[in-house]
Amino acid sequence: MNQVIELVKTNAKKEKPSVESLGFGKYFTDYMFVMDYQKDKGWHSPKITPYEPLVLDPSSMVFHYGQAVFEGLKAYKTKEGKVLLFRPDKNVKRLNLSCDRMSIPTLDEDVVLEAIKQLVELEKDWIPEEEGTSLYIRPFVIATEPYLGVRPAGQYKFMIILSPVGSYYSGQLSPTKIYVEDQYIRAVPGGVGYVKTSGNYAASLKAQEEAEEQGYDQVLWLDAVEKKYIEEVGSMNIFFKVKGEVITPKLNGSILGGITRDSVIQLLQHWGVPVREERISVKDIFNAYHKGELREVFGAGTAAVISPVGELKWKDEQIIVNGNQIGDLSMRLYQAITNIQLGKEEDVLNWTVEI
Amino acid sequence: MNQVIELVKTNAKKEKPSVESLGFGKYFTDYMFVMDYQKDKGWHSPKITPYEPLVLDPSSMVFHYGQAVFEGLKAYKTKEGKVLLFRPDKNVKRLNLSCDRMSIPTLDEDVVLEAIKQLVELEKDWIPEEEGTSLYIRPFVIATEPYLGVRPAGQYKFMIILSPVGSYYSGQLSPTKIYVEDQYIRAVPGGVGYVKTSGNYAASLKAQEEAEEQGYDQVLWLDAVEKKYIEEVGSMNIFFKVKGEVITPKLNGSILGGITRDSVIQLLQHWGVPVREERISVKDIFNAYHKGELREVFGAGTAAVISPVGELKWKDEQIIVNGNQIGDLSMRLYQAITNIQLGKEEDVLNWTVEI
Ligand SMILES: Cc1ncc(COP(=O)(O)O)c(C=O)c1O
Ligand SMILES: Cc1ncc(COP(=O)(O)O)c(C=O)c1O
Repeated sequence: MNQVIELVKTNAKKEKPSVESLGFGKYFTDYMFVMDYQKDKGWHSPKITPYEPLVLDPSSMVFHYGQAVFEGLKAYKTKEGKVLLFRPDKNVKRLNLSCDRMSIPTLDEDVVLEAIKQLVELEKDWIPEEEGTSLYIRPFVIATEPYLGVRPAGQYKFMIILSPVGSYYSGQLSPTKIYVEDQYIRAVPGGVGYVKTSGNYAASLKAQEEAEEQGYDQVLWLDAVEKKYIEEVGSMNIFFKVKGEVITPKLNGSILGGITRDSVIQLLQHWGVPVREERISVKDIFNAYHKGELREVFGAGTAAVISPVGELKWKDEQIIVNGNQIGDLSMRLYQAITNIQLGKEEDVLNWTVEI
Repeated sequence: MNQVIELVKTNAKKEKPSVESLGFGKYFTDYMFVMDYQKDKGWHSPKITPYEPLVLDPSSMVFHYGQAVFEGLKAYKTKEGKVLLFRPDKNVKRLNLSCDRMSIPTLDEDVVLEAIKQLVELEKDWIPEEEGTSLYIRPFVIATEPYLGVRPAGQYKFMIILSPVGSYYSGQLSPTKIYVEDQYIRAVPGGVGYVKTSGNYAASLKAQEEAEEQGYDQVLWLDAVEKKYIEEVGSMNIFFKVKGEVITPKLNGSILGGITRDSVIQLLQHWGVPVREERISVKDIFNAYHKGELREVFGAGTAAVISPVGELKWKDEQIIVNGNQIGDLSMRLYQAITNIQLGKEEDVLNWTVEI
């Protein structure tokens, strides 16, 4: 990395919110990172500037044709005051995968990683230290060219903003209720479901709202073609423990390849717990339940880390998983991953990066 | 409509571009319409203001979760100096259909229609008068709430901007080359393909780019489930004339219900030309070609009105339609619709609205 990141200082520092009021994604720190792209110049002028509004022409293409991709990762402060990132190289790689699919010029991965590090270092006083809290890091790219024709834009902005967060799910680790969606579809092979582009999330809201009206927390998506096979939850991948084995849907082009998902698989392998990625039908899961073989269900994602599932509803049937209690394996995974993230446990798989 | 639209005047008027330089969506007029939504206030404060940049927090939800919908229609100036809109009520209805699917609060249709009329009236000197030109009207809604959680936003901006345009396709009415896309997928039943939301367009860029690399102008999308049935083109619906009959894919939940499409169907019915909406396989179209029964293929959309197709490529086969010439029916439809839009021909179906 030989590109120098300019720093524009601010004197107007914000007051930091109390831990109780944090929530998720409500407060932002004093600085942000910005880098611009222009067709003739490439990505240029990396800068850390005061956190400030964007000034964009109403015809900026992101508002109309939706070229926008993002990432989400967290920085943690250890008891000793060290600042750790969790597998940030994976996020940077996935950002470029998203860029590529959405016809956005890819970024220099070293520059992005360096930008994350410098920004977090500068803002380290913003990292909350209480159990379950962290500094959420949101890198994103938007198409800024002012033009109303459907084609890839010629101008983009890459930014990183930081938000001190509590737990994504209000309250502590507790089983969630999941609605198996059999009407709305999130993604299709040949589409953009495997990348983090804004449109995927907008398209998911209606189903999420309707599930909530019925008293469910999240939606479990099925495949677009047969509406039989399990894909993922709102912003988590999903795992099932059936008898002694853990299974999760294999990445098929419409599922987002979660970094937590990958970490869960690696940890299970490391522990010697059988784990397989495969095509999983809802029917098989419900059958396993009826045979008394469905032991645990849990989601895995950056925001919640591990989220145990206590209830699944599919068509007219509701099943209660593991007596609506947090399963042992879910708990073990949650603790192992959060302990590694917080530097409380040996980083056996070499995941954390100290700033 | 009893909401009064406030007008904030500008003295800094722009110079109008020459007709030759117009292109599509490059220049914007002096004013725009803005109306805000807040959860506790609903849609409020409709205003016509000088065309100016938006000032948005980097965490504004549109950048991250893509809640954005839009419309596109045109204003025309007749020889007598009258200003005509073409079926604007249809666009306003579709805008609300899009809002509803994307969990955006719907708008008062009378207010939107009135806003379009007042803005166009104010900017009528910007309507170019040359053959094929018009004033493109772009109403759109974006989620502005600064918040990083996946849920419908609590704040939105509805805007209308205007752009004097030449022809969408550079050059005049001439046959286009279409690539039948059998890898990438645009939309799926249960998804958002039937509405005008930004993510649909971002998701289409990659296929469009690859088709262009192979020398094609546009992509023809197939259905997501079987990849057999014809859906639509980039920003046009598609029609086939097979023997004496015209067919077009029926609206199935993944195809956008184009207003030009509807107008074509109505005109054909009015003329007594047989027309049917049905599920159409690519194979049947290629078979019709081989039997010498495929007479014409054309796209229909606001930007190009009618766009004759001269070549179709599907897998390893290319077929030349109607000797790569503009078909009689395509030409007749193009002329009838543009004549009605320009007030040159009797508006038999009562489509135009004078401002
Ligand atoms: C659609 C979707 N699936 C899965 C995940 C989990 O991915 P990760 O573990 O990388 O956070 C996320 C969240 O990032 C997501 O948005
Ligand atoms: C995806 C898509 N299909 C079809 C159309 C044609 O619709 P209309 O005739 O209303 O312009 C458009 C353009 O608006 C479009 O974006």
